[in-house]
Amino acid sequence: MNPVSLEKKTAERRDGEPPMPIAEFEAAVRAVGPERYHDLHPFHHMLHGGKLNKGQVQAWALNRFCYQSAVPRKDAALVSRAYDRELRREWTHRILDHDGFLPGEEGGIERWLVLTDGLGLDRDYVISRRGALPATIFAVEAYVTFVREQPLTIAVASSLTELFAPKIHKERIAGMLENYSFIDDKVMAYFKRRLMQAPRDADFALNYILKNARTREEQQACIDAVRFKCNVLWAQLDALYHAYVDGHIPPGAFRPES
Amino acid sequence: MNPVSLEKKTAERRDGEPPMPIAEFEAAVRAVGPERYHDLHPFHHMLHGGKLNKGQVQAWALNRFCYQSAVPRKDAALVSRAYDRELRREWTHRILDHDGFLPGEEGGIERWLVLTDGLGLDRDYVISRRGALPATIFAVEAYVTFVREQPLTIAVASSLTELFAPKIHKERIAGMLENYSFIDDKVMAYFKRRLMQAPRDADFALNYILKNARTREEQQACIDAVRFKCNVLWAQLDALYHAYVDGHIPPGAFRPES
Repeated sequence: MNPVSLEKKTAERRDGEPPMPIAEFEAAVRAVGPERYHDLHPFHHMLHGGKLNKGQVQAWALNRFCYQSAVPRKDAALVSRAYDRELRREWTHRILDHDGFLPGEEGGIERWLVLTDGLGLDRDYVISRRGALPATIFAVEAYVTFVREQPLTIAVASSLTELFAPKIHKERIAGMLENYSFIDDKVMAYFKRRLMQAPRDADFALNYILKNARTREEQQACIDAVRFKCNVLWAQLDALYHAYVDGHIPPGAFRPES
Repeated sequence: MNPVSLEKKTAERRDGEPPMPIAEFEAAVRAVGPERYHDLHPFHHMLHGGKLNKGQVQAWALNRFCYQSAVPRKDAALVSRAYDRELRREWTHRILDHDGFLPGEEGGIERWLVLTDGLGLDRDYVISRRGALPATIFAVEAYVTFVREQPLTIAVASSLTELFAPKIHKERIAGMLENYSFIDDKVMAYFKRRLMQAPRDADFALNYILKNARTREEQQACIDAVRFKCNVLWAQLDALYHAYVDGHIPPGAFRPES
């Protein structure tokens, strides 16, 4: 399968045409994953395949924390723009999933910090984002801005990389447990929980856009939003690869102990 | 007590001066209530004193719904800007308080709709905001925008009219139950719940600004934020008074059956 021809086919603008039938629209959204989800990225293959050293895995976890910790701000930005109480109620769940809710109840961010703890990274350093790659910060903040500024249906659509997440999480759990002596079951808790959360969230968001994207242009913008989100994820792995595989670590960024 | 001289005293800018001692800063925040909280407004006195007819109470409840339903968007705007997880966790509680959380669990907005139901207003009409006074919408959206755009500590400060809320809610419950045959215990559930929620929320927000407003300018901006919020509340009662007491109902706004 040639990803370029696939992309041309799905990216073609058809403004002014009638909306796609629902099944075709859904298929076009789902087609974005095989085209450009970050499970296709070489860094991902190295991570899961045990090809990284501990410093590289640290760099990945440290940078990915920036993404995790931006997610509740992104979700709150969406809630802040929703006049529909049912949409807000559903979406506020996501904030709680990441930040936790009751005192002592851990959320996804806390589970991610268990991973970075387990990798021997200082928690305050991770939270400060001081050692993160600038390209990481730019990518995740572009996502927050997208959700803050795009029409609501398009903003909802940008979450739909969750359709593709369970597969990558399963691979990650199996591959990382098998391949790295410094990874154990406890630190993989984040991914295990997401195996349950992501499908529920994705179902809601998918149904929302199938119902609310009513013109061909809105449908196309939803598909583009999923692509945009894939770019946000891909750009983070590109930056990691350049810095920590090719060895071009930019000034100020985390440097693994060698 | 002359409100003008009081205001001059607290509003005086002292840029470049050292920050106020905490106790003085807190006292200045608390002084805003007696100066301009909407319990001083003539419409409020009429409402609680049984001086309004049913149509006027309907107009109040219908317009006030716009404020209630904007609150979770306002709170989510704050969460979307908070990098501190603890602040987000605390503030997300407010969204849940208004929107409800689990299926079937009512929040403040639902309780407000019980009040408008009880007053004989059509629920869809209330939710649509079609009959609300434009001045109401402008005021509540100015509040959402303020919280979205002001520095975080200042945005937190704007919630602090909650310091003054328990008194007005107690007056409202007692006064309205006593004075209106069309008001019963059930429809006053909103205010009863707020008697518990508001003090907890206000304590957190007050401690937050006492800790985080570190310069005289930030302290002054916090005090001004509480004034701004009082203005948001006051402007809504002014608009109600002009339209439904003085009788200048603008085009398109709710018209009580006479």
